Order: sequence, then structure tokens, then C-alpha cells
Amino acid sequence: MELPVDAARISRELDTLAGFTDDPAPAVTRVVYTPTDLKARAYVRALLREAGLTLREDGLGNLFARWEGARPELSAVATGSHLDAIPHAGRFDGTVGVLGALEAFRALRAAGFVPLRPLELVVFTSEEPTRFGVGCLGSRALAGVLTPEQLAALRDADGVSVPEAARAAGFTAPLEAVALRAGHFHAFVELHIEQGPQLEAAGVPIGVVTAIAAPATLHLTLTGSGGHAGAVLMRGRRDALLAAAEVALAVEAAALATEDPDTVATVGILDVHPRAVNAIPNRAFLTVDARDTHEGRRDALVARIRADVQEVAERRGVAAEVVLVNADPPAACDPALVAAAERAAAAAGLPSQRLVSRAYHDTLFMARVCRVGMVFIPSQGGVSHRPDEYSSPQEVAQGVEVLARTLAALASEPD
Amino acid sequence: MELPVDAARISRELDTLAGFTDDPAPAVTRVVYTPTDLKARAYVRALLREAGLTLREDGLGNLFARWEGARPELSAVATGSHLDAIPHAGRFDGTVGVLGALEAFRALRAAGFVPLRPLELVVFTSEEPTRFGVGCLGSRALAGVLTPEQLAALRDADGVSVPEAARAAGFTAPLEAVALRAGHFHAFVELHIEQGPQLEAAGVPIGVVTAIAAPATLHLTLTGSGGHAGAVLMRGRRDALLAAAEVALAVEAAALATEDPDTVATVGILDVHPRAVNAIPNRAFLTVDARDTHEGRRDALVARIRADVQEVAERRGVAAEVVLVNADPPAACDPALVAAAERAAAAAGLPSQRLVSRAYHDTLFMARVCRVGMVFIPSQGGVSHRPDEYSSPQEVAQGVEVLARTLAALASEPD
Repeated sequence: MELPVDAARISRELDTLAGFTDDPAPAVTRVVYTPTDLKARAYVRALLREAGLTLREDGLGNLFARWEGARPELSAVATGSHLDAIPHAGRFDGTVGVLGALEAFRALRAAGFVPLRPLELVVFTSEEPTRFGVGCLGSRALAGVLTPEQLAALRDADGVSVPEAARAAGFTAPLEAVALRAGHFHAFVELHIEQGPQLEAAGVPIGVVTAIAAPATLHLTLTGSGGHAGAVLMRGRRDALLAAAEVALAVEAAALATEDPDTVATVGILDVHPRAVNAIPNRAFLTVDARDTHEGRRDALVARIRADVQEVAERRGVAAEVVLVNADPPAACDPALVAAAERAAAAAGLPSQRLVSRAYHDTLFMARVCRVGMVFIPSQGGVSHRPDEYSSPQEVAQGVEVLARTLAALASEPD
Repeated sequence: MELPVDAARISRELDTLAGFTDDPAPAVTRVVYTPTDLKARAYVRALLREAGLTLREDGLGNLFARWEGARPELSAVATGSHLDAIPHAGRFDGTVGVLGALEAFRALRAAGFVPLRPLELVVFTSEEPTRFGVGCLGSRALAGVLTPEQLAALRDADGVSVPEAARAAGFTAPLEAVALRAGHFHAFVELHIEQGPQLEAAGVPIGVVTAIAAPATLHLTLTGSGGHAGAVLMRGRRDALLAAAEVALAVEAAALATEDPDTVATVGILDVHPRAVNAIPNRAFLTVDARDTHEGRRDALVARIRADVQEVAERRGVAAEVVLVNADPPAACDPALVAAAERAAAAAGLPSQRLVSRAYHDTLFMARVCRVGMVFIPSQGGVSHRPDEYSSPQEVAQGVEVLARTLAALASEPD
């Protein structure tokens, strides 16, 4: 089967999609349920309809675009990714898995492929944790990991809950109907940029993911004592920013201490109060993002960070409030899907290599309801979540071809 | 002379003034030229007019309220302070020196005092550095330390310059006319809360300031490399927040290293970019506020901090931009004014003690154009720049009486 993947078309569509941003190009900022996010969704919905797909949206805004199979009663083969982008991010994270899946469907149809099983393209709501503090909102809810009650308890910085924000964005279906039953999908395969340096360094165009690292998120609030930066003597200060500085360095030290490159930990947010040049900070808020491919080692990392926070807080006379926002298990990709993706790469004449995803994806949660696999394409410089994130049109097209061939194989499985 | 200082009246007026705030009580947030600042000014202007004073405002909004002397041709004795408050501050910093001076004038007039020299109450614009990054904007300009050209170069976070903001707030007089000639005032005396613990600890109601510590401010921008918090390995990261954390701790260590309690250094602001839970910070901005009573030691402190920033930046592969925003000399109070304040305290039957002001005040810059003195009252718990900043009505009234008697003595000096 020759697959007419149109590299120029998908590049054009990625460029157009990148235009929906709340920061000037090349930065992309697209936060869930904002007017910009809704405009981007409308653009993608129109493309999906043009391609002849049947659309359905759930109460969170997860979007399902279906290509009916010859045997509609069989469970569908699903693919997809997300459209939202963290502040000052790039144009390929998530979007390649959405527009790439669409291009895969179009190429398969143009090649005369007739799926036995239905194919569904899923656009997940809020893979990024920007607004509500928890990543993979849509796929967590689909997997039943976030219940409607838990969604109602999640609020953004303005105190707006997820259901309130979803309704305001026009998604009014009941949240009780979001969770999928086990077996709803036959399999799920996500196309994504690597967001790391391995494929580029090896000169290999296709990565086949074997496992996704286990992420955890902590929210820390440190409360000390403020006062005038000139008048309060150094001895006896209880400066929340200095405590936060020690915690940030302890987080780095804890990740380095495992001496395994798969352990990473990051303080991405540090806010101080009252945030005045001549006032001692009396409060600091920071986030810790900790990940490891080994769940036990990830848990030990989190435990060490918690202990370090307590030690710093006690020594500096600062109160510490620690909230474990999430601590998810890692996901193993299904060996049969790994093999299917490798065969697809071979059929496309493309070298592939197996790797582990240290970044997490909606696939991490789809693994709770069906077999999963992931296909990676190279990220220039290993760079992601930045405006200079880049994969070439050819690399994107190669990923689309491997995705299409993998989906075709899976959609042809009678059972 | 019996002085009928009305403790209840000035407490009421302080309470009313505290109602002009952009944060809920008990916090006071009143940033220069905001609608809230302008409303507070209007309230105080009305009180000054009611007291029969003649008002003049310059192009920055510095306000002069004059009680004419028997010999109007003599240089005036001045007093005053500021109305602006940093975010989440309290109700006594600055305001006690404005409303206290007004109460001193009223008490002197009620007691039948007739000044030989004119008395002027000055309300200084923007003693706090919140909006434009430089403290004592008004008094610096009065002292000629900030020229109209330099004022035009100072911009707030939105890029608005000082002259633009002043004009928008309704202050349209030429900035060229702001600077006072040397000898414009006979003397300047400021009443202020101590903002430190010494008077309360000693159980002494009146502090007579002998010197004001030398302040310096640095703005630091650290630029590293961002990326995905999961995908970028720990080794080789150039995390701007971790560099900033090391710098903040180095600032503390540098201040402690002098082993003199008069050395203080504070990081009050730390902003990170892009500020996302799952993105490595690629940029950090921080402010350093460094002070010492000894100018040479202060300069050595600043030099050590600069060296530490370079060391951290080089080791972490981060670019460092260091801007010295201000580095002012300390000010010595005039021995004759110190003696006058001590005599005034004795006449009021109040114990007093001499002390050094580690916080700076508009007096620091008035010292460039005339002899200066300061009178302090106790701060409960040594606390300032916080909502729980407190001095009792009695303590405020005692300070007002000492200020009034000091002003009366100075205004009676024929030459």
C-alpha cells in the first residue's frame, strides 16, 4: 500500500494552528477553555468534518472523530493527542498527534484502505496542567481516574472549577458520561514529538515507545515572617523565599542523587508574597514536578523531597504545607503494539528504535482502559515546551506514515 | 507651653486613611499615582486646607502645606513623610509622619504658638520603590539627585515613564521646577515609626535618629535554557530558577558574613519564566536590597554579591545581567537637631534614646539640601511593611508632641 501523506498540507495546518496563541509568534500559549483554545478547536473541528468524520464531544470537551468501520460493532482503534499549550511553548507538542492522525486518516482513505474496525481520532482536553494544576485532565476523566466529584473540586487561580469552566466553554454534556468502560477501544496509539534528544542524536527518524515514566506533582506553600527589608535584622528572620531557594536546590540534589538519567525533578513555579523589593517575603509557593521510569524510585524521590522540605522548614522557622497533587504509575506499552509500530516503520522503509518516554502523555491514562502504543519523531535539539521546538515537515510526515500503517494493521484485526 | 495633641483625632484620621487601599483591610496597598493613591491624597489635602494651610504641588505631586511665619522671608522649617504603601503593608509607615505633622501644627496653633519662620508640611511622592523600582522618588527629585531626564527614563512594569504617570495623575507643573535650591529649608524633621524592635525592647517611647543607613538596590536577570520538565535530563540543564536560588542564598550569606547587625540584604522579588509546573525556568528576575550604616561596608557587600552572581552564573551556564539601580550614601542627622529633639522629649516628660535608622526615608535625601533630624516612635514587635504593623494611639500622640516641640524650637530660630 502506497500512502500519499501530504507533508506540505500538514505543515500548513500546523502553522495555521500555531496562529491561535495568546503570546506573539513563535511562542504558542493556548490554555484550556480560553477563547484562543476554543478558536483552535473550531479550526480543527472544521478540518475533521471536511475529512468526512463523525464528531462527538463529551462534557469536558474531549472530541471523538470517527471513521466508521466495515464492522461498526467492533471496538474502535483510537489515536489522538492534545491541542493545549503551556505559556510560551511551541507548535508541535500535541498538535502533531492531532493533525498527524487526521493526515493519517486522509492518506489511508486516499490509498483506498477500508477499515474493518472503526477508527477514532481523540482530541483530549487539557493535557497540560497549566490552568487546573493537574495534567491530562481529559484522559484522566476518560480513564475514570478523575471522577466528576474530583473534577468539581479542581479550581483554577480565579477559583473557577473544571465543570464551571467547561460549561462556560459550551461543553454541557453530563460529566458522569465521560468515563469509558474497559474495552471501549481495541487499542490506542499516539503520535508525538520526542521532546528529548535521543532520536536526533542517533539519527533515527522513528521512536517506538516501550514505557512512559511515572510523574508526580507537589504543591508547596512555605509561610514565614515578613517585614521591612531594612529594619529587620538578619538573625531571626524567617524568610520564606530563602526557604524556597533551599528547597529548590534540594529538589535538584534529590534527582541527581539517584545517579540515573531517567530521574528528573523540576521546580517550575516559584511565587513570593508580598513581592516587593523592600519587603522580606513572608510566603512562597512552589511546584515540584518529579518523574522516573521506575515507580518505586519515583516514590522514594518524592519522599526524600518531602523530608528535605521539613528539614529546611524547621531549621528556618517556616511552616510548610505540602500537597501531593498527583503520583501516577508508569505505563507499559503493549508488546504487540510495539511490534506493530516497528513493522509499520519497516514497511515505510524507516529505521526505528525503542525508547522510554520521560514526558507523560494522554497515553499514560488511556493505558488504564486499553492496550496502548506511542510513535515518536525527533525533536530538534531535544527542545520542547519552548517557542523554538521544531520537527521538520519530512519528520512529521514520516511519523504520520508510521502511525497510519500501525492504525491500518490494528483496524484490520478481527478480534 | 501645654500642647493639646488629640490622640483620638489622629487615630481616627489614620484609620480613615487606611481605608484607601487596593487590598482588603487590615492590609494597605497604595501605589503611587493609582486611583487609590489619588483618593488618599485628596483626603489629606482636604484636612490640610481645613487646618488653614496654603497648598502647593509640584510636577511630581510633592505637596507643600504652609503655615506662614511672622517673618515670611525666612527659610521655612519643614516636616513630613509619605502616603504610599507597598503591597500588603500596614497603616503607620509614612502616614504617621504626614498626619502627625498636621496634628503637630494644629496643636501648636491651639496652644497659641506663633512661628517666627514659616512651617511647611511636605507630602513626598512615592517614597516606596514599588512602581518605578527606585525609592524616594519625590525627595530625590527635590534634592536634585534625580533630574527630569532621569525621571523620564524610569518606567513602570507597563512601560509608563514617571512624567507620563505624573501627568496622567493630574500633576502638570514643569519637572524642571521640582529641585529645591540649597538653603530652601532651614531644617527638616520627619516623624516616623521605628520599623524595628529597639524602642519597644528598651521600653522607651521616643527615638532620636543620629544617622540613616546607606541603601543600595540591584536588579538581576538570569537567563538559562528552558525545556520540558520531563524530557530534559538533569545533567546539562541550565535552570535559571536554580541559579536564582543560589544567588538568594549567597545574598543572605554575604550579609551575615559582616557579623554586624547593621548589615542587611534581602531578595524581595523573584519572578520566573515561563512559570509553568512542567517547564524548566529559562529566565529569572530578582531584586537585591542591601543596606549598611557604613557606606564602605555596604559597597563591599554589593561587590561581594556581584562576584557571587558571576560565580553562580558561570558554574550553571546562565547569563547574568546586573543593574545597580541605586547606591546612596548614608545621612548623618544634624547634632543641633538631635539635641533639639532630645530637649523636646524632655519637655514633654518622655524618655528618649538615640538610634540609627536602618530603613531609609525621605530624610535621607532632604539631607542633601538642609539640616535634618528624625523622631521615631515604637513599632509593636518591630514589625513593618506588614498588615499587623502597629503603634498605639498614645505612642503616636507622644511622637506628635515631640515633633511639635522640636518644630516650635526650630521655627523660633532667627538665623
